[in-house]
Amino acid sequence: MVVSNLNELSLKEVSQLIQSGTVQPRELVSDCIARIELCEEELNAFTTFDPGHIYDQLTEVERQGNKSALFGVPVGIKDIMETAGMRTTMGSKIYRDYVPQRDAVCVSMLKTASALVAGKTETTEFAFFSPGRTRNPHALDHTPGGSSMGSAAAVSKMMIPLALGTQTAGSVIRPAAYCGVTGYKASHGSFSLAGVCGFAQSLDTLGFFVRKVEDLTTVRHTLSGAPAEILPLSGRIRVALVKTPHWEMADASQQQLIEDVCRHLQGHQIEISEIEVGPSDGALTQAQITIMGYEGCRSLSAEYAKFPHLLSDQIKVLIEQGQHTTHAAYLEAIKLGNIWQKKMRSVFKDYDVLITPSAPGEAPRGLDSTGNPIFNRVWTLLKVPCIHLPVASGLNGLPIGVQLIGAFDQDDYLIRAAHHIQEILAEFEFVPN
Amino acid sequence: MVVSNLNELSLKEVSQLIQSGTVQPRELVSDCIARIELCEEELNAFTTFDPGHIYDQLTEVERQGNKSALFGVPVGIKDIMETAGMRTTMGSKIYRDYVPQRDAVCVSMLKTASALVAGKTETTEFAFFSPGRTRNPHALDHTPGGSSMGSAAAVSKMMIPLALGTQTAGSVIRPAAYCGVTGYKASHGSFSLAGVCGFAQSLDTLGFFVRKVEDLTTVRHTLSGAPAEILPLSGRIRVALVKTPHWEMADASQQQLIEDVCRHLQGHQIEISEIEVGPSDGALTQAQITIMGYEGCRSLSAEYAKFPHLLSDQIKVLIEQGQHTTHAAYLEAIKLGNIWQKKMRSVFKDYDVLITPSAPGEAPRGLDSTGNPIFNRVWTLLKVPCIHLPVASGLNGLPIGVQLIGAFDQDDYLIRAAHHIQEILAEFEFVPN
Repeated sequence: MVVSNLNELSLKEVSQLIQSGTVQPRELVSDCIARIELCEEELNAFTTFDPGHIYDQLTEVERQGNKSALFGVPVGIKDIMETAGMRTTMGSKIYRDYVPQRDAVCVSMLKTASALVAGKTETTEFAFFSPGRTRNPHALDHTPGGSSMGSAAAVSKMMIPLALGTQTAGSVIRPAAYCGVTGYKASHGSFSLAGVCGFAQSLDTLGFFVRKVEDLTTVRHTLSGAPAEILPLSGRIRVALVKTPHWEMADASQQQLIEDVCRHLQGHQIEISEIEVGPSDGALTQAQITIMGYEGCRSLSAEYAKFPHLLSDQIKVLIEQGQHTTHAAYLEAIKLGNIWQKKMRSVFKDYDVLITPSAPGEAPRGLDSTGNPIFNRVWTLLKVPCIHLPVASGLNGLPIGVQLIGAFDQDDYLIRAAHHIQEILAEFEFVPN
Repeated sequence: MVVSNLNELSLKEVSQLIQSGTVQPRELVSDCIARIELCEEELNAFTTFDPGHIYDQLTEVERQGNKSALFGVPVGIKDIMETAGMRTTMGSKIYRDYVPQRDAVCVSMLKTASALVAGKTETTEFAFFSPGRTRNPHALDHTPGGSSMGSAAAVSKMMIPLALGTQTAGSVIRPAAYCGVTGYKASHGSFSLAGVCGFAQSLDTLGFFVRKVEDLTTVRHTLSGAPAEILPLSGRIRVALVKTPHWEMADASQQQLIEDVCRHLQGHQIEISEIEVGPSDGALTQAQITIMGYEGCRSLSAEYAKFPHLLSDQIKVLIEQGQHTTHAAYLEAIKLGNIWQKKMRSVFKDYDVLITPSAPGEAPRGLDSTGNPIFNRVWTLLKVPCIHLPVASGLNGLPIGVQLIGAFDQDDYLIRAAHHIQEILAEFEFVPN
């Protein structure tokens, strides 16, 4: 059997072909490298990409013969994650030539499972908002979103079936939305962030970019021992539409998409309600901003003291604001987050999954901003797992989709529900008004 | 004014002398180095100690002239924390010669505040239980406790006024107890652990070793912007004695000490009650063990795959047990922890501080074990802040004391209460029966 364009398959599909011996990892690697070499010049998804290094790793895992589900699969690693012997820039001029000697724990676990580091994917500066070089695969003069921009773009452009990201505000879900790929931000604390450049410890969370929801279980299994397969759902899914206090910031076709999707889902083992979550004045969004600034300014204090000339103005403003935020204001923000984390447990007694916009709409034009995480900040603050499902195209022909949110530490259930919803939406057709 | 033996002063005392210009950091550094050189050969508190490097740092901070509260203060850094240009062994043969290029965030923040890295302090292997080389300063053939053994011993032996540690089971509070110094484990997530070798992300927490409770605010202020001074207490402190399901494992003089301390405290603005916390069958202790094994085995999976011959048998057993713990059992343990984290909020509505043993008693004889964290595991699982106060000597003349526990994220209040209790206990005399 000859399967062409292995790079276009989902992680699950290609993994099954490799496991069964139908294709060799070398064929997948070859197709991915060819695709990267074809598209990278205009996309800029990678900070560091070295085909020779990928083949060296392949030779090594072939020699070891440890055929786990990620055997021979090239994975994109966000460039704030340390990689032994491979440059890790943090998106910063300060670390332009920084080559760590150890792997971050998430990277070392992937390597131990015989995955290959395909390269380091572009990030914004320290995973904050100052853009990197990546372009949107669907429209080169539009942003791919940030901060995990290279990871989202590389998976979207069929360069690789899997890439890692992190989220502190909306750095997984927003680029997934703008690039039209499935993105997942785990419950806070699910995975070790050892060896990952820290920004704000109360918010920083690991995430993945894949083609299909079912790919997520493969990665979770590798990194945490969670079930490798999606277990069958029993009973209906109680879905609640949450418009958030920022609903008016979503553009008309994003709003229409969510409402159309809810109508379409109704009935397929799914019940739809509409509820409000959190204070209506956006206080949770403000709390996320306060915490991110307060903790971020401390994480970057040495860089600010020693290399201010190598930092963007944008990040310098954040640091200076963080320095002027009082400890009392920070504790208030943490406390508000704690109160609502607790209240979310009641919400998830009555509902299984929340549905809400992933982003205000299609990726904005221009590469000088990565777009707005306004629909992500609250869920990051509340530590709950989030999945972006790409669903349709907006008026400009760029991807839009929906964000699904689960209860804290119930990531496996959220993935099962998202998988069911993905299947239903396969036959959904969206016609923006 | 000539003050001799500056190394014997507490952080707060020496910091005030430096701030006022009464002494120069150079005098403190000289006294600390002399003390380390005198005692290190028998104590083995440091993995890496280089006086020339301390003087280089001193020259640099003197040049900068940034006179924060830690200006010129030598600090011990647990050897699982990355230090730029200085060996970071993780207590492991695998990383014997590992020299990072970047500082952990906690280290970089101390350096930015003009503190000096006095050296790397000895740790157990990957901060688990296999002992390092450090001896107990009060009895060289007894363990100093683990895993932050070098930090506790160095502060106890008057080598340095401050050292950093981490706790996953009992790695700050136990060595503080055995070495007779004040130890503090922060609320989980209070401080960034970026650049610190991760063991179990749900449990790993930063801590400090100091001479006096009031020193803790100086460090918290530097690392998190919390108040630099201890605010006055208003009203009484409702203290609850918690014997835990493991009370019978505490030896007679440790049990007697806690009860005598409670009697002594009664009345000094303090009310004492006795309560039970958690299930009586030790299920919370077991949950901590399950989580530590499950997450720890994954954090060390690359080391286990590549360098099994360089790992201790003890850590290999942990990893293998962790591999055989099911994801379901892990989630049950996490869930039990979450339930009791929530229940602790009710406990802290009725009580302000819990008092309980820090360790089963005096440091055990022998250097082949670091002692038992049985009185620490539950509080680490519950993410609450803990302080060890050294109070007296036991029957063998080695230190014993009490563990004070506060509500999650109420670290500043716990420090105020512990400071008040420390003052009261200054006049307490303990005569073991």
